[in-house]
Amino acid sequence: MLNFSKLLIVSFLIFSCTKQVSQTVSNDNSEHPKLILTKKGVENIRKNLGKIPIFDNTLQAVKDEIDAEIALGIKTPIPLDYSGGYSHTRHKKNFLALQKAGLLYQILEDEKYAKYVKDMLLQYEEMYKTLPLHPKTRSYARGKLFWQCLNDSNWLVYVSQAYDCVYNYLSKEERNKLETNLFKPFADHISIDSPQFYQRVHNHSTWGNAAVGMIGLVMNDEELIERALYGIKGLNLDKTAKDDDGGYLNKDGKAGFLANIEEPFSPDGYYTEGPYYQRYAMYPFLIFAEGLQNVRPDLKIFDYKEGVLLKSVNALLNLSDADGEFFPLNDGQKGMSYYSRELVTAVNIAYKYGNQDTGLLSIAEKQNEVLLDDSGFSVALAIKNGEAKPFQKKSINLSDGSEGKQGGVGILRSEYLELVFKYAAQGSSHGHYDKLSFSLYENGQEIIQDYGLARFVNIEQKGGGNYLKENKTWAKQTIAHNTVTQNETSHFDAKYDIGSQHHSELHYFSSENENVQVVSAKETNAYPGTELLRTMVVIKDKDFEKPYLLDIMKINSSKENQYDFPYYFLGQVLNTNFDYKTPENLQPLGSKNGYQHLYLEGSANASSENSKLSWINHQKFYTLTSITNNNDELLFTRIGANDPEFNLRREAALLLRRKNTKNTLFVSTIETHGSYSPVSEFAVNSNSSIKELKVVLDSEEYTAIAVTNINDTTKLFITSNKKDTKEAKHTIKINGKNYDWNGSYYYELIK
Amino acid sequence: MLNFSKLLIVSFLIFSCTKQVSQTVSNDNSEHPKLILTKKGVENIRKNLGKIPIFDNTLQAVKDEIDAEIALGIKTPIPLDYSGGYSHTRHKKNFLALQKAGLLYQILEDEKYAKYVKDMLLQYEEMYKTLPLHPKTRSYARGKLFWQCLNDSNWLVYVSQAYDCVYNYLSKEERNKLETNLFKPFADHISIDSPQFYQRVHNHSTWGNAAVGMIGLVMNDEELIERALYGIKGLNLDKTAKDDDGGYLNKDGKAGFLANIEEPFSPDGYYTEGPYYQRYAMYPFLIFAEGLQNVRPDLKIFDYKEGVLLKSVNALLNLSDADGEFFPLNDGQKGMSYYSRELVTAVNIAYKYGNQDTGLLSIAEKQNEVLLDDSGFSVALAIKNGEAKPFQKKSINLSDGSEGKQGGVGILRSEYLELVFKYAAQGSSHGHYDKLSFSLYENGQEIIQDYGLARFVNIEQKGGGNYLKENKTWAKQTIAHNTVTQNETSHFDAKYDIGSQHHSELHYFSSENENVQVVSAKETNAYPGTELLRTMVVIKDKDFEKPYLLDIMKINSSKENQYDFPYYFLGQVLNTNFDYKTPENLQPLGSKNGYQHLYLEGSANASSENSKLSWINHQKFYTLTSITNNNDELLFTRIGANDPEFNLRREAALLLRRKNTKNTLFVSTIETHGSYSPVSEFAVNSNSSIKELKVVLDSEEYTAIAVTNINDTTKLFITSNKKDTKEAKHTIKINGKNYDWNGSYYYELIK
Repeated sequence: MLNFSKLLIVSFLIFSCTKQVSQTVSNDNSEHPKLILTKKGVENIRKNLGKIPIFDNTLQAVKDEIDAEIALGIKTPIPLDYSGGYSHTRHKKNFLALQKAGLLYQILEDEKYAKYVKDMLLQYEEMYKTLPLHPKTRSYARGKLFWQCLNDSNWLVYVSQAYDCVYNYLSKEERNKLETNLFKPFADHISIDSPQFYQRVHNHSTWGNAAVGMIGLVMNDEELIERALYGIKGLNLDKTAKDDDGGYLNKDGKAGFLANIEEPFSPDGYYTEGPYYQRYAMYPFLIFAEGLQNVRPDLKIFDYKEGVLLKSVNALLNLSDADGEFFPLNDGQKGMSYYSRELVTAVNIAYKYGNQDTGLLSIAEKQNEVLLDDSGFSVALAIKNGEAKPFQKKSINLSDGSEGKQGGVGILRSEYLELVFKYAAQGSSHGHYDKLSFSLYENGQEIIQDYGLARFVNIEQKGGGNYLKENKTWAKQTIAHNTVTQNETSHFDAKYDIGSQHHSELHYFSSENENVQVVSAKETNAYPGTELLRTMVVIKDKDFEKPYLLDIMKINSSKENQYDFPYYFLGQVLNTNFDYKTPENLQPLGSKNGYQHLYLEGSANASSENSKLSWINHQKFYTLTSITNNNDELLFTRIGANDPEFNLRREAALLLRRKNTKNTLFVSTIETHGSYSPVSEFAVNSNSSIKELKVVLDSEEYTAIAVTNINDTTKLFITSNKKDTKEAKHTIKINGKNYDWNGSYYYELIK
Repeated sequence: MLNFSKLLIVSFLIFSCTKQVSQTVSNDNSEHPKLILTKKGVENIRKNLGKIPIFDNTLQAVKDEIDAEIALGIKTPIPLDYSGGYSHTRHKKNFLALQKAGLLYQILEDEKYAKYVKDMLLQYEEMYKTLPLHPKTRSYARGKLFWQCLNDSNWLVYVSQAYDCVYNYLSKEERNKLETNLFKPFADHISIDSPQFYQRVHNHSTWGNAAVGMIGLVMNDEELIERALYGIKGLNLDKTAKDDDGGYLNKDGKAGFLANIEEPFSPDGYYTEGPYYQRYAMYPFLIFAEGLQNVRPDLKIFDYKEGVLLKSVNALLNLSDADGEFFPLNDGQKGMSYYSRELVTAVNIAYKYGNQDTGLLSIAEKQNEVLLDDSGFSVALAIKNGEAKPFQKKSINLSDGSEGKQGGVGILRSEYLELVFKYAAQGSSHGHYDKLSFSLYENGQEIIQDYGLARFVNIEQKGGGNYLKENKTWAKQTIAHNTVTQNETSHFDAKYDIGSQHHSELHYFSSENENVQVVSAKETNAYPGTELLRTMVVIKDKDFEKPYLLDIMKINSSKENQYDFPYYFLGQVLNTNFDYKTPENLQPLGSKNGYQHLYLEGSANASSENSKLSWINHQKFYTLTSITNNNDELLFTRIGANDPEFNLRREAALLLRRKNTKNTLFVSTIETHGSYSPVSEFAVNSNSSIKELKVVLDSEEYTAIAVTNINDTTKLFITSNKKDTKEAKHTIKINGKNYDWNGSYYYELIK
C-alpha cells in the first residue's frame, strides 16, 4: 500500500486536483464506529473506565453537559440570525452536543444518548428537507441552517461523528431517511450548490471538504469522498472572481482537501493566514485526517507533504505566548489560545498519529481535557503513566508559502522575552499590510502590541459578531502596525491584488548563540523604489537585568519620503528625555489609510541624539531608546478617532516621524526592567540601563551600532547588509580599528 | 491594675491630652527583648523551630533576604532624594533589614545578625550626629534621613524593634552612644523639633507617636513614653495653621497616641481617611500597641475605646474586595491589599490580642507569612493545628467620626457583587469631595470604578513619587466620582474648611434580607439649598441571572440647577439604545473643577423613557439602564484632557446631564450578566434582562420604582423618604391599589 499511496500523491502533484486519480477504497469495512472512535479503540476505553484521570474527568464533564442538554429538550429553531443570535447559537450548541452524545453512547453504552442523537437528527431531517436558503444575505455563500455555508460545514463535520456513533443503533430505514433527506443534500448544498465556497484553497473550503468527506466516510459514499479529496469534478470557476473579504475565489483552479493541505501550509507547518485561522482550520484538517487514517489508511494522510499536518501542530504551539495565547498576526482575535477545543483535538491527534512527543502531553495536562476518542485515550493514558515532559518553546523560524519560499515568521525567545517578527506573504484575504512588523512579549504580557483584528467574534451587538468596517480602515492598514509607513500610505497601497503577489525575503536567522539571536529580512515591493532591511536582535548581556531588543531598520529609496515609525506600547507614560507639548483639543493625525483613527496626543522635536520613553504596564518598567536627529518629530498618538461606535481600543503609540529623507537608518532598543509592587510600594530598577545608543558605521555593506551601558561598558553589534553565508569572512575598519569575524553579524565588548 | 487602668482612660477623656495623669510604670522590667518579642515568647519559638510550617517558611525567607543584605554590605548614603530615589530607597531597605536582622538574632541566636545591626546602628550614629535637615524642601516637616519626618518616624518604629533585640548584645557604652547621639535626638527631631508634624491627630503623627513611644519603651525612658501617649507637654500650636495637603495642623489641640486612637477611628473601627491610609496607619497603631501591651499591660491598650484597635482590623478587612484589595476611597492607591506587611502585622496581632478569631487565620494563610514575633508564632501554630476558618465578608455598615455620628460607609454584598457607598465625613486632608458616591465590584473586578488617587507612590519619575497636581485638579473633584455634580462645581466648592465641617447622614441601612439589601443616606450641605437623598438597593431576584443594583437619587433644590451624573464604567462600549454622535475633534468638557480633564467623546439627546448602555469588560457583560426624559443629555467622556505629563488613565464614563431643573429623580439599574470566552468564542447572556424601569410614584414621602423583566414580571420597590423606624407602618395607594408594609422599604412582585 505504501507504494500506491506515494504514487497517488505524486500523481496528484503532477496532474493537479482537476485531474482525478482512480483508486479503490482500501478499508471497505462496514463496522461502526470507525471515524474517530474505532471498534477496537472503544472496547479498550470501556475496559479502562475509572482508571485514567484526565479521560474520566473529561467524560464526566461531557456527561454532565449532555445530561443537562437532554433535560433541556431538543430545540431546532427556524434559522434566523447572524452569529451570536439565538438560532445561530442554538444550532451551534446542537452540533457540539450531538457529537458528544454520540461518543457517550459508544463509551457508556447508554441508549439514552443514542436516542437523543436519533431524535434530534430526525428533527433536523424533517426541517431540512423543505428548508430554504438562510434569510440573512450578507454571505457570499449562504447556508441553510446558518447564514453562511461555513457554519453549515461546521455542523456536518461534527454531526458526521455523531452519525457514525449511532449508525448501528439506527434502523436501515432511519439511516436511509437521514442520508437521503439530510446528509446527502446537506453535503451537496455546501459543495455542488456552493462552488464559490467549496472549490477553492481557503480555510472555508477546508471545512467544506472535511464535512463532505467525513459524512462520505461514514456513509461509505465514494463519490463524496472523492469530492472531498479532490474537489468538485469537472468544475471550472471564474478565476478573477473575488469573495467578500476581497480574496480571489479561485485564481489557479485548485480545490479539495489535498490541495488545501498543499497550498496554505509551508513545509515548516506555518499556515499562511496566521495562527488564529490556523487554529480554526486545524480542527477539520486533523479530524478528517484522523477519519481518513482510520477508514482509509492506504492514503497515509499524515505522511502527506512530508508530514506537514503534524508539523503544523508544532508550528502552531510555537506561535503562542507564555500563556498559550496565539500571536495575533493578520486577522487574529486576542485571547484565542491552545486551550481551545481545536487545539485539544490537534494535540491529541498529533500525539497519537505522530511520534508520541511527550512534550505534547504537558500541553494536554494544561488543557486538562482530552478527546473522548482513541487519540484522547492514548494521551490520557500516557499522562497517567507519567510520561509528560515540558513542551519547550524555542526560537524558531517558520517559512511561509507552499514551498517555504515566501518569507516567513521569525520568533526569538530569550528568558521571558519573545519577539515575533513578520516577513511573510500576504496571508490570503485575512492578511494585514505590515511587512517587517513585530510585536514583543514578556512572559505572556504584550510589551509592544500587534493590534489584531477589529471584530468581536460572535458578539451580536457588534456588527453581528462579524468583521467591523474598522478592520479594513484601521486594523489592516500599515500604520496600525509596528513597522514603517512611507508617505502616509499603506504597503502595496493596501491593495490585495498587489500585496498577494509579493513577500519579504529572509536575510538571515541566527539563534544558535542564545546570547545574541538575530532575525533579519528585506522588503523591496511594499513601496516601489524603496528597500527596507530590518534586523532585530535579542541580546542577553550580563550588564542588563534582562534580555533586550535591538531594532535596526535600514531604508534605501530612490526619492525623498516621509517615514512614520510607531511603537504601540501598552501602559502609562512614566517619563521622556524630550520635551513634548500636548494639545488642548485632540485631532486626527490624518484623513485616510488608518491615520484617520489616530488622535495626536502630544508632539516634540527630537533634540538629543537619543530619545527615550519609559512607561509602566502590569507593574513592570519598559524603556524605548531611539537614535534621533534634530529634524525628527516624536508624536504621541492614541487610537480612537473617527470611531463612531467605539469599536476600537483607546491605546497609545509613540510615533517617530522623519520627513524629506531618502536613505536613512532607524535604530532603537526596547528594554524591560524592574518591577513595581502596589502592595510593598517598592519600585525596583525603574530606569533604563542604556546610557548611549550610537551608529558607528552605516554603509551599503555594514551597519554597526554601539550600545553603552550606564556602567560605561560598550558593546558593538555589526550586521552585514549583503546576502552572505554563515561562513563568510568579514573584515572592516571602524575609527581606525579592525574588526574580523565569520558569519552574518559581530557582537563584542569594545570598551 | 484593672481599675487603675480604667481610671486612667476616664481621666484622659475628661482632662484631654494637654493634662497629664501621673502614673507609675507597671512593668519595670529591664529584660530584653520585651517589645514585640518577649523573653518567654522567643524561648517558645526556639523550641518549636522546624515544626510550624508558615513560621518556618517565613523565617527562611527572611533569613535569605537578610543574608543577601549582609553579603551586599552596609550602605548608609548621605540623604538626597525624594521617595523612589536611591538614598530614600536604601534607608527604607535598611530599617526593614535592621528589624528583621534583630528578630533573626533572637530566634536563631546567631551573632552575625546582632553584629550587622550593631554595625549599621553605629554607622547611623556616626552620620546622624552631624546630619543637617534633609536637602529636599517640599515637606511641611522635613526629616533628616528622609525628606519628611514621616519617613524618619517609619525608620525609628522599625529600628526600635531592632535595638530591643540586640540590647543585651551591646555593651553599656555602645548603648549610651546610640541613645545619646542617635535615638534620643532622633526622637526629639520628629517630635519637639517638628510639632507641626507630631502634635496633631493625623496618620503622620501616629507614626511619630509610635516612633517616640517604642524607642521610649526600649530605652525605658518615661519622658518619651509620656510624650508618645499624650503629645508634647505644654505645647500650644496655632490652631488655624494648615499643612501642605490643605488640612488643619491642629484645630482642636489634641495630640498623642491615645488622641490618635480616639479621634480618627469610629466606634466601628472605620478610620476617617479611608482604608488605604488606615492600612498605612495600622502598623504603628498595632505594633506600638503590642509593645505597650507587653511592657505596660496596665494600660490595657487593646481595650481602649471599647477595643477599637482590634475592631479596626475587622473593619479594614471588610473594606477589601474579593481579591483582598482595599476600596480606594479618598486618596487610595489601587492594588494595595491585605497582602501588605502592615496587614500581616494587623492580622497577627488582632488574632493574638483579640478573641483568637479563626477567620483571621484564613487571611494569614493567604498572606502565607507571619510576623517573626509572639503574635506571628501563635497564628502559625493555630494554622498548623487546622483551626483556620474562612473569613466571611458580609454586608456591613461602618460609621464614621470619633463617636460614630458623622455618616459612614455602607457595603452591600450579594453573591459576587459588592457595592461600596460612601456617605462619610470629609476624611481629613486625604478626603475627596464625593458625598453619596459609590463604586461597584464583581468578584474583585471593578464594574463602576472609583478613580482613586493621582499619584504613583514611590515611583520617582512621576513627581518624585508624591501627590501629583492632578490629584487636586482631578481626583479629589466631585466630577471624578460616581455621584451628582451641581452646576459644574464640586461639593463644598472643593473647600476643605467647609467640607470638614459636614458629613452625610444615614437614612437607613438594611441587610437582614439577603435578597433586598438597602443603604440610603442624605446630604444637605454639599450644595447649600439642595438636598440629595440616595438609596442604593442590591436585589437578588430569581428572574435575573445575578444580583443587580437599583440606584435612586432624589434631589430637592430651592432653585434650578444643572445636574451631572457620571458612571465611570470600565471596558468597551457594546451598544446603546440611543443614537449618539461622536465629534471629529475631542475637546475638554469644561475649564475647571475637574471638567477640564474630561474629553467629550460622544453625545446624545435621550429620547426613550429608558436609556441603555451595555459594555464588556474582562469577558463579562454589563448594562446600565437609566430613566431619562427628552431633555436629558447623555455624554460619553474620557479622562485625559489637560494632562501634560500623561498622569491620568484614559478611562471612560457615561454622564447623564439634566439642565434647568429644581427637584428631580435619577433612577438607574446596573446589571452584570453573562460572559464571553475568547477561547470558545461563545457569548452567553449578553443582553440586559430589564425590559422597563419606571417611576410609579415620587412624593415627598415615598418613591416607588417598578422593574419589569424581559419575561414581563414586574417587581415594585418603594422607599420611604422620611426618617422612620424599622417598625414603622406604611400604607399608600398607587394607581388605585393599596400597598401596606412595615419598615423602610417595600419590595414585591406586582405583575
